[in-house]
Amino acid sequence: MSADESVTLTLQQVADLAHAVLRRHGLAEAHVGPVAATIIAGERDECASHGVYRLLNCVHTLNGGKVVPDAVPVVDPVSPALLRVDAAGGFAQLAFATGLPLLVEKARAMGIAAMGINRCVHFAALWPEIESLTDQGLIAFACTPSHAWVAPAGGTSPLFGTNPIAFGWPRPGGDPFVFDFATSAVARGEIELHRRAGKPIPEGWTIDAQGHPTTDAEAGLAGALLTFGGHKGSALSAMVELIAGPLIGDMTSAESLAHDDGAKASPYGGELIIAIDPAGFLGATAAEHMQRAEALFDGITGQGARLPSQRRFAARRRTPEQGCRIPRAFYEELAALS
Amino acid sequence: MSADESVTLTLQQVADLAHAVLRRHGLAEAHVGPVAATIIAGERDECASHGVYRLLNCVHTLNGGKVVPDAVPVVDPVSPALLRVDAAGGFAQLAFATGLPLLVEKARAMGIAAMGINRCVHFAALWPEIESLTDQGLIAFACTPSHAWVAPAGGTSPLFGTNPIAFGWPRPGGDPFVFDFATSAVARGEIELHRRAGKPIPEGWTIDAQGHPTTDAEAGLAGALLTFGGHKGSALSAMVELIAGPLIGDMTSAESLAHDDGAKASPYGGELIIAIDPAGFLGATAAEHMQRAEALFDGITGQGARLPSQRRFAARRRTPEQGCRIPRAFYEELAALS
Repeated sequence: MSADESVTLTLQQVADLAHAVLRRHGLAEAHVGPVAATIIAGERDECASHGVYRLLNCVHTLNGGKVVPDAVPVVDPVSPALLRVDAAGGFAQLAFATGLPLLVEKARAMGIAAMGINRCVHFAALWPEIESLTDQGLIAFACTPSHAWVAPAGGTSPLFGTNPIAFGWPRPGGDPFVFDFATSAVARGEIELHRRAGKPIPEGWTIDAQGHPTTDAEAGLAGALLTFGGHKGSALSAMVELIAGPLIGDMTSAESLAHDDGAKASPYGGELIIAIDPAGFLGATAAEHMQRAEALFDGITGQGARLPSQRRFAARRRTPEQGCRIPRAFYEELAALS
Repeated sequence: MSADESVTLTLQQVADLAHAVLRRHGLAEAHVGPVAATIIAGERDECASHGVYRLLNCVHTLNGGKVVPDAVPVVDPVSPALLRVDAAGGFAQLAFATGLPLLVEKARAMGIAAMGINRCVHFAALWPEIESLTDQGLIAFACTPSHAWVAPAGGTSPLFGTNPIAFGWPRPGGDPFVFDFATSAVARGEIELHRRAGKPIPEGWTIDAQGHPTTDAEAGLAGALLTFGGHKGSALSAMVELIAGPLIGDMTSAESLAHDDGAKASPYGGELIIAIDPAGFLGATAAEHMQRAEALFDGITGQGARLPSQRRFAARRRTPEQGCRIPRAFYEELAALS
């Protein structure tokens, strides 16, 4: 990307752009900050697909009436170790932020706690939520269904969502260990990019509408994505459907897609977050055992392998100085929406 | 396998054989029943690798002094939602059985609960434990490290165990939804079988001692297994190391292999089990939402895909009538140990 083809924005300019676009399209003030925060975090960490690019999804979902722009989340403290947050049709971010303090409190008191978010619109990565728990010294797990775009292993038609799974482990004095990945072989957007470029896609990404493997992006989008890792990824994807769907009284990916009714808005439904306090099992000896975890991380990096979020954290140190590069055409599209 | 090459045992004969072999090699009576039960369940479900075949591992581990044959598990009810069971160096089964009632009680009271088993010798599949929780109407998750045989994605040498992940979801009036898989690309025993047969192994299973991909079984065993699903499976494997290792104050797979010190005994360390009560989040409406989960299962089987444990459950209906076929040479080896 040459200087002509891109613009470089400071993080403050990214923030101003995100706030302006969201406000302009009617998102209530209480939501603007939390929603913009995940978009800013995406640019800051050079996750382009979760940066300002996602503002287009937000605007499309807002304009289509598929999100309640001024929803007020309501917390239900179900049990000493559980809580639910009714997002009331709004974006997930404010619901998460509203429930977070009680989740942290319950995890510290009980050692383990789970939060179910219901009736939320979800378009973001899960790692910002994971990191808000590791920041407080907690271990975190999160998952959410999406829209039914993915076939189960051995199947022929879409049933599962891209169903991301994310996990975080706090590290004393350093970046947390964090992963966040779709249980589909690839993101749907990746196939879309191949379709636009007229390029074939690798085998193992999709099947066509007849259930046969295809390397044609168009045919794959009309068919179904495959899960990563064959039947194992498929089993994990089913688990996400269950524990972030019926377990918390919310939709499966098939139900979310039916609810969408052709609007092509962001997925709607639930999210499950589990938080564990390292001091829960171990009390005062936790620190000593967390130190043994460091030996595991050293064992990974010491042999030249990467930790899952290593590139994101490196970008995070770079962008406050160097700014974020955004394709010019895309920036102009967004500026017109602001 | 012709009739000459195999023997057919009733489940009762399998049980008698397992009990006799374990007793003969000094396993205390309190352990014999729980350990034999997982071996009998393996044969009943036609999981040959977890059936009487595992008696050889048990005998090897007992003879090598790498398990405490008369260990008495001790339960520590850490918090309202957590418990630990110190297996005191014994096989995991009795420790699990000892902690199970309290785990169930805590899960029902709190909605979610976790049990850490420490200092246990683990050689079995996780699904028998998962099913003892789904039998009580609970959702269950379990994982355990093993010995360091698996390289992280992008790495060159063994660090992770085969690190299985298992999950179960109770289904009203039917077999539960259960999966249980290694996060390695394949079981180590599978490579051993190729080595014995002098057959090449598929790409993607192993790397050699220099960290290069290899299809030579011998070179692969001297190097490292790979994880399933590339960097995603590798991330999950790291998660297992952390949450069933340092989180509960127990060993990583590298520490377990060091502890083994060349004895080639079963892995030693911890196991984490999480149980969730469907009524926790949903109260009286749980049944209605569990019914929506059935639509997901119908969506899987309705398109010709299999549920993860479908073959096991089919075998379970067959073997009480038809018995279990075991290679004759292997049966004779076991009979000599009984």
